[in-house]
Amino acid sequence: MKSYMNKKLDHYKTSNEGNVRLLVSCPDQPGIVAAVSAFLFKNGANIIESHQYTTDPENGRFFLRILFEKNNIKEEILELQQKFTPIAEQFQMHWSITLANELKKMAIFVSKELHCLHELIWEWQSGNLMADIALVISNHEEAREIVESLHIPFHYMKANKEIRKEVETKQLELLERYQIELIVLARYMQILTPSFVSHFPNQIINIHHSFLPAFIGANPYKKAYDRGVKLIGATSHYVTNDLDEGPIIEQDIERVDHRDDAAALKNIGRTIERSVLARAVKWHIEDRILVHENKTIVFN
Amino acid sequence: MKSYMNKKLDHYKTSNEGNVRLLVSCPDQPGIVAAVSAFLFKNGANIIESHQYTTDPENGRFFLRILFEKNNIKEEILELQQKFTPIAEQFQMHWSITLANELKKMAIFVSKELHCLHELIWEWQSGNLMADIALVISNHEEAREIVESLHIPFHYMKANKEIRKEVETKQLELLERYQIELIVLARYMQILTPSFVSHFPNQIINIHHSFLPAFIGANPYKKAYDRGVKLIGATSHYVTNDLDEGPIIEQDIERVDHRDDAAALKNIGRTIERSVLARAVKWHIEDRILVHENKTIVFN
Amino acid sequence: MKSYMNKKLDHYKTSNEGNVRLLVSCPDQPGIVAAVSAFLFKNGANIIESHQYTTDPENGRFFLRILFEKNNIKEEILELQQKFTPIAEQFQMHWSITLANELKKMAIFVSKELHCLHELIWEWQSGNLMADIALVISNHEEAREIVESLHIPFHYMKANKEIRKEVETKQLELLERYQIELIVLARYMQILTPSFVSHFPNQIINIHHSFLPAFIGANPYKKAYDRGVKLIGATSHYVTNDLDEGPIIEQDIERVDHRDDAAALKNIGRTIERSVLARAVKWHIEDRILVHENKTIVFN
Amino acid sequence: MKSYMNKKLDHYKTSNEGNVRLLVSCPDQPGIVAAVSAFLFKNGANIIESHQYTTDPENGRFFLRILFEKNNIKEEILELQQKFTPIAEQFQMHWSITLANELKKMAIFVSKELHCLHELIWEWQSGNLMADIALVISNHEEAREIVESLHIPFHYMKANKEIRKEVETKQLELLERYQIELIVLARYMQILTPSFVSHFPNQIINIHHSFLPAFIGANPYKKAYDRGVKLIGATSHYVTNDLDEGPIIEQDIERVDHRDDAAALKNIGRTIERSVLARAVKWHIEDRILVHENKTIVFN
Repeated sequence: MKSYMNKKLDHYKTSNEGNVRLLVSCPDQPGIVAAVSAFLFKNGANIIESHQYTTDPENGRFFLRILFEKNNIKEEILELQQKFTPIAEQFQMHWSITLANELKKMAIFVSKELHCLHELIWEWQSGNLMADIALVISNHEEAREIVESLHIPFHYMKANKEIRKEVETKQLELLERYQIELIVLARYMQILTPSFVSHFPNQIINIHHSFLPAFIGANPYKKAYDRGVKLIGATSHYVTNDLDEGPIIEQDIERVDHRDDAAALKNIGRTIERSVLARAVKWHIEDRILVHENKTIVFN
Repeated sequence: MKSYMNKKLDHYKTSNEGNVRLLVSCPDQPGIVAAVSAFLFKNGANIIESHQYTTDPENGRFFLRILFEKNNIKEEILELQQKFTPIAEQFQMHWSITLANELKKMAIFVSKELHCLHELIWEWQSGNLMADIALVISNHEEAREIVESLHIPFHYMKANKEIRKEVETKQLELLERYQIELIVLARYMQILTPSFVSHFPNQIINIHHSFLPAFIGANPYKKAYDRGVKLIGATSHYVTNDLDEGPIIEQDIERVDHRDDAAALKNIGRTIERSVLARAVKWHIEDRILVHENKTIVFN
Repeated sequence: MKSYMNKKLDHYKTSNEGNVRLLVSCPDQPGIVAAVSAFLFKNGANIIESHQYTTDPENGRFFLRILFEKNNIKEEILELQQKFTPIAEQFQMHWSITLANELKKMAIFVSKELHCLHELIWEWQSGNLMADIALVISNHEEAREIVESLHIPFHYMKANKEIRKEVETKQLELLERYQIELIVLARYMQILTPSFVSHFPNQIINIHHSFLPAFIGANPYKKAYDRGVKLIGATSHYVTNDLDEGPIIEQDIERVDHRDDAAALKNIGRTIERSVLARAVKWHIEDRILVHENKTIVFN
Repeated sequence: MKSYMNKKLDHYKTSNEGNVRLLVSCPDQPGIVAAVSAFLFKNGANIIESHQYTTDPENGRFFLRILFEKNNIKEEILELQQKFTPIAEQFQMHWSITLANELKKMAIFVSKELHCLHELIWEWQSGNLMADIALVISNHEEAREIVESLHIPFHYMKANKEIRKEVETKQLELLERYQIELIVLARYMQILTPSFVSHFPNQIINIHHSFLPAFIGANPYKKAYDRGVKLIGATSHYVTNDLDEGPIIEQDIERVDHRDDAAALKNIGRTIERSVLARAVKWHIEDRILVHENKTIVFN
C-alpha cells in the first residue's frame, strides 16, 4: 500500500512540476491585476487558472489566486519571490508563492467513528487529496489497524476534559516534530483549548454534524430529530475559540422524513459529513481558501 | 380568468368524484388496519392509496391516511361516517372521512413582496393546488391588481404593532364570514397574537426565509450573510405561539458562495421560498399532513 | 475484522428477530388489504410498516410490502405460509413471506476500480447493508488484499470476450456452491451472456456510470464530456439481456462545468456511483424492490 | 405595470452606469492577461469581476470575461474600442466591449403552455432578467392577455409544418424591425428551419423538457415514463440545425418515483423547465456564455 501511494504521490508531483500558486490579499485599488500579470509575463510564467474577488467596490479588500506554470521554478522560486517583493509592498499585500507539488503535511485527529477518516484515506488513495498524511492521533484504538496498514504513524493518546492540557502539550510536540501544517478533526469529539488553537490559525478543519448555525454543540442529530427538521446537514469549518463559530468552508444537506429517528439521522448524516469534510480538506491543501474576517472565500 | 379557473375546478371536482380521504390517529395496537380495511371492503370502498406510520413500536401512536373510492359517496357519506363510529370508538381514534372534491376554503395573507403569492396563484391556475382561494388580505396595495384580476376579493387592512388587536378582530370577522379553513402567510411579515393563532390550530402555514432553526426571527438573509453560510434555506411550518418554532412541514436549500451579498441571498432565496411554501400548502389541502407533538408526519 | 462483523451481524439478527416481510403482487381488486390484514391480525402479527401501489385504477396490478412482527416466527413460518396459501390463491398472488433476519447471500463482481466495492464494504461494516457477502469474484488482483483482510473468499478469474463462456461456467459453479441470491456488479466492466443472466432474473444489480438512457454502452464519461453536459449521473439497474436497458432502481447526478475534462467527470462520477449502487443493494436486500414489466417499484 | 417596469429598468441602468463587459476569445499564449489588464489600468478602468478559461494547456483556446467600471464610458466607448484594436490584432482575438446597461432586445416565442413565459416575466419584473422584452410571438392566443397587460407587443402567427416558410419569413421581418438580438423559445413546440436558425447563431435559446441527450425529440416525459427513470430533467441549449443537439447551457433534475405517471412527470418537470430556462437567459443577457465548438463556457 505504501509503495502504491508513493507511486500516486510521485505521479502527482511530476505532473504538477512547474506549477506555482500565487495568493494575494490586499486593499483594493486599480492596477493590481495589471502589475501582477505583467510581472508574471516578464518572468516567463504562463497563467493556467485565475480567480479574484473584491469584498466591496468601495474600500474593499482584494483577493487573488493564480495558478501559473514556469520552467525551472524549483531552482528559481526564491529569486521569483524576491522579485515580487516590491510589487507586494507597493500594494500592501499579504501574499505567498508556493510550489503546487510541495505537499502539505497533515495530521488527522479521530475518535471512534471512522467514516470521515475512511473517506479521507480513500480520496487520498484515489489521488484526489494530495497531502502528506504524516500521522493520525486518536483517543481510541479503533483506527489503528487501517492507519498502520497504510504505514502511517498512529498515536494513541487518551483524552478527556481533566487531562486536556497535558494531552495537548504532547500533541503539540508531536505536531511540531512532524512539521504539521494542517490538522483535520475527522470526528474527534474533543474540544481544543484556546492555547492549542492559537498555534494553528485557520489550519484546523473540523466537521460539525449539523447545518450550522443550527444545532451548535453536542448531539446535533438528537436536536435535529427533536425539532422535526426535514433536512439534515453537515458543516466543515476552521476551528476558532468560539465553539462551532469559525469560518464555514462547506455545507451540504440530505433529505429526511418523519420515519427517521435520531439513529437514522446519524446514519444518513455520515454520508454528508464524509463528502463535506473531504471537499474542505481538498480545497485547503490546494490553497483555494482565503479567510476574511469570519468568512471564507473559496476559489474553486 | 374566472371562467378559466371555474373550468379547472370543475374538472378537478369531477375527476375526484367518488374519492374519499380517511384520516386516523390513535394509540397503536394490533388489528387497526384489519378492522379499517374490512370496514372499507364491506362498504364497497376500493383503496387507492394508503400510508401508515407508528411513532414507536412500544406504546406508540398510530397514524393512517387512506384514499379510497366509493360509488354514491356524496349521498352516503353521513351514513358511512356513522357506521365507522363504533370502530373509531373501539380504537380511541381521532378521525375524519372527507370528500376529496370538497375544496378547502383558504385565505392568503400577503405584504409587499409578491413572489409567494404569485407562485400559489400559478400552481392554482395550473391545477396543482386545488383549494378555494376565498380572499386575500394585505397591509399593502401591491397585490390588489393581480388578485382582483382573478376575481378574488382583496381586502386591504393596515397593520402594525399598535393596532394589531383591532386589525385582528376585523380579520377574524372576515375569516369567519368566508368560513376559512386554512390561512397561508405568503410573506405577511406581521406577528399574529396568541388569541388569533388559537382560532386556527395547525391551520396557519407560514414561510420562513431561512433553514430553521437557524436564523429565527427577523432578517434571516442578513444573518445568513453575516455568518458566511454556503447554503441558504426556507422553511414552511404551522404557526404556533412560539415564533418560528411551530411544526416544520417542508424545507429546502440553495447553494450560495462568498460573492453573494445579503441582497443576492434574498434574491436566490425567493425561489426556494416559493416552492417550499407551495408544497406545504398542497400537502395540507390534500390532507397529507398530520401533526404529532411538535412534528409533522407528511404522507406524500 | 471478521469477529467485528460477526458482532454486527449478530446484533442485526437479534434486533430483527420476529420481523417478517410479506411481499405480494396480484391483479388489483377490492378486498385484498382487508383479507391480508385480517389474516395477519388473526395470526397474532403486528404490522410495523406497509406500502402498497396499484399500477392503474382500472385493471391494474396491485403490489404490497408489509413488515410485521410475530412471536416465535422462526418456528411457525412454514405454518404461516401454509395458512396464507388459500388467500394467495383466491387473489392469484405472487407472494413471499420471509424472515427479516435471514441474510441474503451476495456475490460481488469487481474489476480494477475499487470505489464501489469499498463503499459496499463500508456500508456493510457500518451495519447499513445487512447481507452475507459470500464471495468476491474479479478478473484482476487489485481487490484481493482488502477482501481477504475481511475473511471473505476472493476468486480471481481471468475474463475477456474470447473465454467468456468457460469463465461463466466456472462462475456459475461457484455461485451455486455458495447458494448466491444476489450478484452485484461493482464496476465489473464485462458483459454477461444471456445464458448467465437467465440464471439470475432481477438478481443482478449493475452500476452504470451515466444517467441512463443517456450514454448507453462504453465510455459514458467521455461521451458526456464530448456532449458538454452540465450534470453527470449514475444509474443502478437490474441486468437483462438488453445492454443497459434493464429496470432502473436508482439514479443520481452531480453538477459539473466546462472546466471538467473527461478525467474529472470520471472522478466526480465515482462519488455518485458509490451511493447509487449502495442504495440499490440496500433496497434489494431489504426486499423493497418489486419489478413490473421493465420498471421498478421501490417501497422505501 | 409598464411604468413599474420602466422604474426597474431605469434603476438597473443607473446602477450599472459605468460598467463595461469585455469578452475575449483567442489562441492561448503567454501575455494576454498582462496586455489586457495593463490596457485597462492605463485607461482608468477598474476590474470588478474577471473569469478566464483555457481549453487546453497545449495549443488551447483562451477565453476571458472582464467586468470593469470606467467613468464617462458612454462617451468614450468608441475611443476605448479603437484603442483596444491593436491588442486584439496582436493576439488574434474575437472580442467585444459593451456597456452593461445597454439592454439586449429579446423576443419570446411561446405556444399554449405558459409556465416558462410566466417565469421569464416574473424574473423580469423582479429585476433579475434585465432585457428589453421587445415582443412575444405565438401560434396560439393563450399568452395574449398577460403579454398585452404588460404593454409588450403580442403577435399571433399560425404555425405548422405546411406554412413554416411563409411564417418564418414574416417572423424574420418582425425580428428585424425590432432589432432582436436574442430569441427565447419558451416551449414554442415548433421546429425552425436551418435558414431561420442561420440568422441567429447562438442567439436562440430553447428549453428541452428532458435531461439531454436522453429523450431527444417529441414527448420526452412519455419516453421517460416508459423507461422508468427515477429523475427527470430539463435542458436549456442554443438552437442549431441538429435537433436538440446544440450547445447545452444549463440542466437540472427533479426526483420522481414509480407512482408518477407521464402526466405527473410533465407537471413536476415544469418547475425545472422554468428555472433552467430562466438561468440560461439570465447568463446570456449578462454575456456570461461563450460557445466553443459544440459546448458552452459559462462564466457565472
